[in-house]
Amino acid sequence: MNRVCNQLALKSIGIVALCAFAVCGPTAFAGEPESPIGFSEDAGQQQLALEDDYKSRLNAKDLDQWMQELARHPHHAGSPHSRANVEMLVKLFREWGYTTEVASYEVLLPKPIDRIVELIEPEYYSAGLQEDIVEGDESSSQRADVLPPFNAFSIDGDVTAELVYVNYGIPEDYELLERYGIDVKGKIAIARYGKSWRGIKPKLAAEHGAIGALIYSDPADDGYAAGDVYPEGPFKNDSGVQRGSVVDMPTYPGDVLTPGRGATKNAKRLKRKDAVTITRIPVLPISYRDALPLLGALGGEVVPAEWRGALPITYHMGPGPAKVRLKASFEWEMITIENVIARMQGTTYPDQWIIRGNHHDGWNHGAGDPISGLVAMMAEAKAIGELAAEGKPPMRSIVFAAWDAEEPGLIGSTEWVEDNATVLKDKAVAYLNTDGSGRGFVFMGGSHTLEHLFNQVARTVIDPQTSVSVSDRYRASVNVNGTQAQKNELKASKDLRISPLGSGSDYTPFLQHLGIASGNIAFGGESGHGSYHTLYDTYEHFSRFRDPGMAYGVALADVTGRVTLRLANAAVLPFRFTNLADNLKTYVEEIENLADTQRSDAVSDAKLKKDKAFDLALDPTRPLTAPQNLTAVPYFNFAPLKNAIVRLETAASDLDEKLADVAQDGEASEALNRKLYLSERQLTSPAGLPQREWYRHQVYAPGFYTGYGVKTLPRVREAIEAKDYAGVDDQIQITAQVLEAFADYLNGISRSD
Amino acid sequence: MNRVCNQLALKSIGIVALCAFAVCGPTAFAGEPESPIGFSEDAGQQQLALEDDYKSRLNAKDLDQWMQELARHPHHAGSPHSRANVEMLVKLFREWGYTTEVASYEVLLPKPIDRIVELIEPEYYSAGLQEDIVEGDESSSQRADVLPPFNAFSIDGDVTAELVYVNYGIPEDYELLERYGIDVKGKIAIARYGKSWRGIKPKLAAEHGAIGALIYSDPADDGYAAGDVYPEGPFKNDSGVQRGSVVDMPTYPGDVLTPGRGATKNAKRLKRKDAVTITRIPVLPISYRDALPLLGALGGEVVPAEWRGALPITYHMGPGPAKVRLKASFEWEMITIENVIARMQGTTYPDQWIIRGNHHDGWNHGAGDPISGLVAMMAEAKAIGELAAEGKPPMRSIVFAAWDAEEPGLIGSTEWVEDNATVLKDKAVAYLNTDGSGRGFVFMGGSHTLEHLFNQVARTVIDPQTSVSVSDRYRASVNVNGTQAQKNELKASKDLRISPLGSGSDYTPFLQHLGIASGNIAFGGESGHGSYHTLYDTYEHFSRFRDPGMAYGVALADVTGRVTLRLANAAVLPFRFTNLADNLKTYVEEIENLADTQRSDAVSDAKLKKDKAFDLALDPTRPLTAPQNLTAVPYFNFAPLKNAIVRLETAASDLDEKLADVAQDGEASEALNRKLYLSERQLTSPAGLPQREWYRHQVYAPGFYTGYGVKTLPRVREAIEAKDYAGVDDQIQITAQVLEAFADYLNGISRSD
Repeated sequence: MNRVCNQLALKSIGIVALCAFAVCGPTAFAGEPESPIGFSEDAGQQQLALEDDYKSRLNAKDLDQWMQELARHPHHAGSPHSRANVEMLVKLFREWGYTTEVASYEVLLPKPIDRIVELIEPEYYSAGLQEDIVEGDESSSQRADVLPPFNAFSIDGDVTAELVYVNYGIPEDYELLERYGIDVKGKIAIARYGKSWRGIKPKLAAEHGAIGALIYSDPADDGYAAGDVYPEGPFKNDSGVQRGSVVDMPTYPGDVLTPGRGATKNAKRLKRKDAVTITRIPVLPISYRDALPLLGALGGEVVPAEWRGALPITYHMGPGPAKVRLKASFEWEMITIENVIARMQGTTYPDQWIIRGNHHDGWNHGAGDPISGLVAMMAEAKAIGELAAEGKPPMRSIVFAAWDAEEPGLIGSTEWVEDNATVLKDKAVAYLNTDGSGRGFVFMGGSHTLEHLFNQVARTVIDPQTSVSVSDRYRASVNVNGTQAQKNELKASKDLRISPLGSGSDYTPFLQHLGIASGNIAFGGESGHGSYHTLYDTYEHFSRFRDPGMAYGVALADVTGRVTLRLANAAVLPFRFTNLADNLKTYVEEIENLADTQRSDAVSDAKLKKDKAFDLALDPTRPLTAPQNLTAVPYFNFAPLKNAIVRLETAASDLDEKLADVAQDGEASEALNRKLYLSERQLTSPAGLPQREWYRHQVYAPGFYTGYGVKTLPRVREAIEAKDYAGVDDQIQITAQVLEAFADYLNGISRSD
Repeated sequence: MNRVCNQLALKSIGIVALCAFAVCGPTAFAGEPESPIGFSEDAGQQQLALEDDYKSRLNAKDLDQWMQELARHPHHAGSPHSRANVEMLVKLFREWGYTTEVASYEVLLPKPIDRIVELIEPEYYSAGLQEDIVEGDESSSQRADVLPPFNAFSIDGDVTAELVYVNYGIPEDYELLERYGIDVKGKIAIARYGKSWRGIKPKLAAEHGAIGALIYSDPADDGYAAGDVYPEGPFKNDSGVQRGSVVDMPTYPGDVLTPGRGATKNAKRLKRKDAVTITRIPVLPISYRDALPLLGALGGEVVPAEWRGALPITYHMGPGPAKVRLKASFEWEMITIENVIARMQGTTYPDQWIIRGNHHDGWNHGAGDPISGLVAMMAEAKAIGELAAEGKPPMRSIVFAAWDAEEPGLIGSTEWVEDNATVLKDKAVAYLNTDGSGRGFVFMGGSHTLEHLFNQVARTVIDPQTSVSVSDRYRASVNVNGTQAQKNELKASKDLRISPLGSGSDYTPFLQHLGIASGNIAFGGESGHGSYHTLYDTYEHFSRFRDPGMAYGVALADVTGRVTLRLANAAVLPFRFTNLADNLKTYVEEIENLADTQRSDAVSDAKLKKDKAFDLALDPTRPLTAPQNLTAVPYFNFAPLKNAIVRLETAASDLDEKLADVAQDGEASEALNRKLYLSERQLTSPAGLPQREWYRHQVYAPGFYTGYGVKTLPRVREAIEAKDYAGVDDQIQITAQVLEAFADYLNGISRSD
């Protein structure tokens, strides 16, 4: 379900930096390929030769054929074609020389029974809730096994109430509604997709007292306003609906009944009523065709400019006179999900595992999401298998995983990780994820200890459309389309920053539950979007609009394969800690600025209120009033965090120097490498984060009220954002202790032999 | 036709400062009213009492009744109801004690005969080009004497060609079209209203080789996206069309056949073919209902996000496959226009004239534009007449003028000014203009020498909806909605800046042709717009949506009446030169920044081109290319301007001090006051501006490529904007000489007795 990157990127290339590289540096080499981190000079040259060999084995036709087969029919978790795909994957991985197993779990999955959305007043309209068959896309005419538009893990419900338009349904929208005197209590909220992960919308609506929620795709965001609609172009036609999970993933992902445990046959299970991640109100997604009569029937205040979509109406907030009935009911089935796990034993360090994953389930045909990433991973597995067969096996073990049931809530990966937590904590060196991908620019996210590795690879891989590296192409896009701040950063002589990971794909359990250094890589920004989670995410759509000829599928395999092979073969594992320290420093600065901004805004608003400036500036004939409930923002003691960063910078620098020396010697102890990859574990705490103990990482977390969007140093940042000011100093203290301990840990490695 | 202020203001209160006060200071007094500039302490108190008396005579019911009568029928120049209105005005002014005459001119005015817009390919559509009758607006059902939608001073033409969408049709849009490889040569351009004065659109289209132009109102700008449409709300319904002149007003306004001369019966006239201000290509305005099939039939590239409107289509640039026929033909009639001129002799200085004007012609019913401003002026004239009759006549002469034929091109005022240039240059102290007005915030523009006077009055007049001054209400809106820069300026302890004047209403000939200090005042920002120049600018619309109860009409008369009376009665004319010097200093800074920005952008773009960054960043499957024709921007010698400003600051400060002393004595010589009001003349040059000698003012001009939008220090600013870099230093020199001479002039006054 990974989508954040492409979505942001496509809106404006200028924004991609939020999602991938936030900073860029000049090309670190000209002509000569730079020596890979973790290798001696000689070994590095051999590695580069191996990678060129690897690259020559990637074949776009393979990807194309696999996609045609895997995306031939709907293949959501539990579907017949999903099982066929699992068999195909098992067969292929075995052919390619992997020890392959199917790791199955029993999980609760809702299947829609009734879906009704009706406008009851002021006139009747019954929403079609179905996508059109379109010319030229044979797949769209298939109806067997197709999942109709629904939001997984909505509760059952049948509610009728007045409608309120809540824009994107994120916290700031409710603050504005309050200023208008509009309450969603007892009402049905209609929110548009975008700005937050979809599950946040019913969560916030319920917290504000709504009894039901609708989510629709506004044509402003990925419909006709954005570009030509399917089948003329890639964007959403008026029948297209984005499906998707609304499970409360920021609390915990995976099977709703077995938080923290693998959902094995006999696992201890919650009762469904006790599963807190299921929504509290019924919710359904609808097309803009179905949203038009509903929104058009709203009265009340005209929305502010930022709330306008692209439907040909005047947008009003309501509540009413539009009255809507929303019924959603589900068969709450226990189904078996199947992860495909394929292992290749490392020749030197079999107990150090490089894990490489991509999910295999889709909402329906899922050609883009997830098959475009899966076929790149398959190409990688095939080539690595060939290399091994020809006598060039990896030094460390490589584990390829094709996850099931990612779409409903990262279920396959989460259950496997929870089930195998002990061994993974011990053996997992790193986890590298892909998901849907397309044409354009490379987007790289992950643990900052992997930043230099990713950058070296991005400087090596050539973009299929131009003759430069994918790193240089990305840099050019920032230089042309970025903000001045981004351009200024580019001039600094360092690696491009990779984006920290929030959630939205299968890296979450690895990184945020167990503390395994993780990465997530995709291409995008030039593929039209709009097919995401609709009936139209088909081979026909993908091959016409998203990556014609699969050139970028090959580029993706080129990037991820080199990363995998370097992790597998480096004498010294290619972590670089100064990159982490440098990024952490910027996060602390960001958070301090956030507090300062909130403080000066609060001071300014309080003064304006005292001076009655709002009363004077706002139209007295309209209901919009001054901001309510202004809270003064105290000064916080950031010193512990800043002191920790200073120590960490030194510790990281010392260790990186030592590691460079060791790498030049060409050999490192298993123990040293073990300490290196266990370093990410030190950034976790067993108690987890406030309100959500499943999330243990103290540096990276999905936002409690953003969903996919990352919150770095989440204890501190979210306390400030949530205006829980009394708790901030404590959260700083706790986080600083984690970073201090981490610095100690690095110093410990530096001092060891 | 004054519209810029309200239009900008309504989009976002935050922007109003561009249009009115750009800077604000704290309230200059608390409790005690401040002493009016130009009066002694005692005389100031008497003046304030007189103004309170004046104010008590303003009556909303008068305004309402006059508007009902004046806007009862269409009253465009030459129409029967226009003549009836002239008679009514003459009768009333005479009743109120004014010596009243009708100043008539013979001018060329086109009347539409044929108007055809047809989509020929890929399917047929014939544009309706007519506005609907709407329920609840009796006026909209009148068809006698109604002017159908057209653009005055389009040439005749019948053209058929492929269509190209040019966004707003301003210079930067053509730069982008060039980067897409799209040429309008031989095509018909369709532009949306907005961003520039409408006449710029066919002018630029023709310069780029288009053979016809359509201008439509996109619903994003003042249709359903902005708010509820008429009759549910004030905004444009899908049949509404903005009429308006497209005469090349930035070259010269007024009668197209008599530039620089009054269009008296026997005046020497150009041949029509030699009138350069008539468009070079035919042009018609259309509704968004009529634009939809045309824009919907365009192919080619999808537009960038900034070019999107709110129609429910994917906007494409073309050219074609849409092929359009556009036919426009006109009866080119000589008609008689009638200005009403009403004079009240000043008791002490009869040869010093305060001129107060508002046009009386409308496109049709013209309730908002211009009657809302005219009835405020009438209330002012009536009250001042009463005061005079009761023994409180003005010391200086007051001339009220109701102009004809403003809409087609400021014709009535321009011809009168040209006809009476000699006497006006000698006797006119100042010109104060109003035009359409509404509910909300005060917008004040004008010569900066009047800035302090306007501010003092704005701090005196109480806003009808709140209990504070209109100045304080404006300040609150900047504090709540303004940019940080605007808020910072607010903190400085000085007058709010008033906006410099470009064009768009009848102040232009006074200020920019003759150098008479001028002002323009309106209220707005809380009146819904959309009726501007449509069939729906009716009493019904205005009284429901724009100023219910005429409270702001009275507030306008309160402001302008006090300004008029202070100008009429002050011992020392209330000019303050330090305000002018301070604003001029900021304009020089702005222009230097403009050059710096253009230079660094050019350097940056050149470097990006050299590095092939555009080639790498742009989608190679799409035609958008790097910017063409980059010109390096040299450094300019701004020293002459900056030295002139320094001298001017001292001269202004010295003179203001002297004037304050003289005012305290309570008496000033006629000669001193004459020198004061002749000061604005010193800012003009007989040679005018490059390419347009009619425009003589060297500080304020409408932009050659913006139309209404002001360009301060136009010689220098426009040379830089037009990339005519070779000429910039000369223009700096010429402008600096004007300012140096002006400083000398002020010093001369300071040194005189």
